[in-house]
Amino acid sequence: MTAKPTPLSGFPELLPAQRAVERDVIGSLSRSFELHGFANIETRVVEPLDRLAKGGEVDKEIYVLRRLQAEDTADDTGLGLHFDLTVPFARYVLEHAGHLEFPFRRYQVQPAWRGERPQEGRYRQFTQADVDIVGKDELPFHHDIEVMRVMVEALDALPLPPLSFQFNNRKLIQGFYRGLGLADVTAAIRTIDKLDKLPAEQVAALLVSDAGATPEQAQRCLELATIRVPDTSFVERVRALGVEDPLLEEGLAELAAVVAGCGAGERRRVTVEANLRIARGLDYYTGTVVEIFMEGYERLKSVGGGGRYDALATDGRTTYPGVGVSFGVSRTLIPLLADGVLAGSRAVPSAVLVAVTDEDTRAESEAVAAQLRARGVNTEVSASAQKFGKQIRYADRRGIPFVWFRQDDGSHEVKDIRTGDQVTADPATWTPPTDDLRPQVLLKEQQ
Amino acid sequence: MTAKPTPLSGFPELLPAQRAVERDVIGSLSRSFELHGFANIETRVVEPLDRLAKGGEVDKEIYVLRRLQAEDTADDTGLGLHFDLTVPFARYVLEHAGHLEFPFRRYQVQPAWRGERPQEGRYRQFTQADVDIVGKDELPFHHDIEVMRVMVEALDALPLPPLSFQFNNRKLIQGFYRGLGLADVTAAIRTIDKLDKLPAEQVAALLVSDAGATPEQAQRCLELATIRVPDTSFVERVRALGVEDPLLEEGLAELAAVVAGCGAGERRRVTVEANLRIARGLDYYTGTVVEIFMEGYERLKSVGGGGRYDALATDGRTTYPGVGVSFGVSRTLIPLLADGVLAGSRAVPSAVLVAVTDEDTRAESEAVAAQLRARGVNTEVSASAQKFGKQIRYADRRGIPFVWFRQDDGSHEVKDIRTGDQVTADPATWTPPTDDLRPQVLLKEQQ
Repeated sequence: MTAKPTPLSGFPELLPAQRAVERDVIGSLSRSFELHGFANIETRVVEPLDRLAKGGEVDKEIYVLRRLQAEDTADDTGLGLHFDLTVPFARYVLEHAGHLEFPFRRYQVQPAWRGERPQEGRYRQFTQADVDIVGKDELPFHHDIEVMRVMVEALDALPLPPLSFQFNNRKLIQGFYRGLGLADVTAAIRTIDKLDKLPAEQVAALLVSDAGATPEQAQRCLELATIRVPDTSFVERVRALGVEDPLLEEGLAELAAVVAGCGAGERRRVTVEANLRIARGLDYYTGTVVEIFMEGYERLKSVGGGGRYDALATDGRTTYPGVGVSFGVSRTLIPLLADGVLAGSRAVPSAVLVAVTDEDTRAESEAVAAQLRARGVNTEVSASAQKFGKQIRYADRRGIPFVWFRQDDGSHEVKDIRTGDQVTADPATWTPPTDDLRPQVLLKEQQ
Repeated sequence: MTAKPTPLSGFPELLPAQRAVERDVIGSLSRSFELHGFANIETRVVEPLDRLAKGGEVDKEIYVLRRLQAEDTADDTGLGLHFDLTVPFARYVLEHAGHLEFPFRRYQVQPAWRGERPQEGRYRQFTQADVDIVGKDELPFHHDIEVMRVMVEALDALPLPPLSFQFNNRKLIQGFYRGLGLADVTAAIRTIDKLDKLPAEQVAALLVSDAGATPEQAQRCLELATIRVPDTSFVERVRALGVEDPLLEEGLAELAAVVAGCGAGERRRVTVEANLRIARGLDYYTGTVVEIFMEGYERLKSVGGGGRYDALATDGRTTYPGVGVSFGVSRTLIPLLADGVLAGSRAVPSAVLVAVTDEDTRAESEAVAAQLRARGVNTEVSASAQKFGKQIRYADRRGIPFVWFRQDDGSHEVKDIRTGDQVTADPATWTPPTDDLRPQVLLKEQQ
């Protein structure tokens, strides 16, 4: 190991103060999920390839594991790194179903891997936080509201720029298209999903050419897709389009319940909308769908999303329907940290540095540190008995707010190095202000 | 996904109640490390192969990453999964040195991967907790005591069977062998390291045949290796063997300081010993070495270990000496969980299940849950409005201790389903006993 290593593209790493921010965020998410009774699990990072490769397009992004000594690909282990947390969760549910109680509420915060080209917000290794509820054979609709509301509350508690949850419902779209008389509902959904990339006229033309719509039908599809409101008033606006279908009615009722349920209560940063343009490309969604966007970071596209799937997993005899939502921890935090919008207040957990007068009395400084730690104060002892000015700079470079001095007469003083204030203190009782106890996450509020 | 998946050998997964134990252990370790000012980092899981493959024997255990679409091994990414946390940490230090303050105290809790044959305590994916202090160009000896003491305190706080830290010092062994006039000190250390596998006479014979020792020298090596005491009395016993060497003296002083420093204070489960047989096979240790053993689980060999290395990393200009110790989280917990020595008290975080009388009043049950959560009580609402007896069994199967009933007259009652006691309660003020707030780790004390 004699050369300075260069960073690996797509595998970002955090410095200690940045990692403190990520830990704080993950800790806060975990507390929110647990408050609602969600149990944490961790799955192994590998899955058999036949389980990973079913999704179609993701194939080429999978990293396969090979033993170093293997001569050719025939010696592959048959295992690949998971590219999301849904595939491993589905497998975990099937494999351990006999030991789980349903409905099963779980959250999972782990890295996943994709061999795709790295860009801002897209990495080859990235951490996600997923929360799902899975039933056995059936899962009542009220769990849709429950799981979405949990993520709303969890993200609202984080120090992030404003977030918007944009909900839609696949039954609503499908019912509307069916009621409209569209021949190829699936093709129409796939086409309307392109509205974030293409202008409306072009999407209308594609609806005609690819989804077999008449120009009038295409126009109605676009009208539906432009409805975006922060409350349940979308119901009246959809009805005003004059399309009738029982599945549409079911979708309207479900979406109204989700928007009302998630929109209720005081929020600091999260807003909730019905946005009838949201479709989510993946085939397996069957009801509620959601995408989450962050103000000022629209270029990242969604920072999270999810929805209802009537068959998360099946073993041929039993089907496990689910509803869940995923938050992109790396996708969100790494750009915010890079831009300085988020920062950690210091690089070390220590609130106090105990100075060392000389190496012969290091044990006495250690004894002071032990007293502070016994009351939960993160404390380190100076690495060397330099002049006090140097020891203060040692603390300052790490962001440690307090330096503790043992005086020759056996008394003690503690200095707040930010203000210069130095006061006498008793190691058996002194504690720093709560805000200084551990590193803080600093959010630069945007204009 | 139509077949029930089978477990993958060497990739153990925990059920929710077991995972709660692992989370509790990792949380406790993290708090202990942070109390002493150690910052958490996480490294990416991959390293360039040339960095991983330097260690010699580990080569064949490395998992290499290949893109799924690659045709042959020439398309390998050149990346492998790390097999420990030391190699990635050394690389992290070199890569980010300009942004770190030295001495740098870090802890790291992550999985690592080895493609070796699985057995009890040895897995293909396993989690380790490492704590290290790294200096730039120099690192005073007192950090050896500091980092070892941190791990002693961290493990002493865990609910585990009794643990023994067995310390030695490479300077002591090398100085003794040199003072004894042994020609090949390295070969002798490698041979004496086999004492845990071979009988003493055989090791003595190997010292003669492989390390060029005379029978008398071999006898002295064995005498040194049998010294094992819980205090610093080993110093006199080594001196009584009559070997003199300045490096031996240095090693004796260091080992005495580590044993005295780590042995001081009240401990619940951890004992500290000087065991002069401990050598640790790896070449890079240069001073303090330690191995950690768990009572009743000697068959796992050590559950942790570490030591001093004078060159954790170097970029050709700067050398980074370090001292650290690693604890095998999976190696320790998975056998204990499998044996029922450790167990989680319940499978869900929830302390309370709020019963639902009928679906029309679900919102009122949700409101009760929100009041409890606002005071930090993990609460879930019953999934369906079954008969109360069924809802109580729902809680019982998950280990949830309390079920909450909203009465028709607007009053509330809460039932401890373990005792059957049911009392009136106010959702704005009631809290469960502290021990019931979150899942507990249960340790079956061994006889």
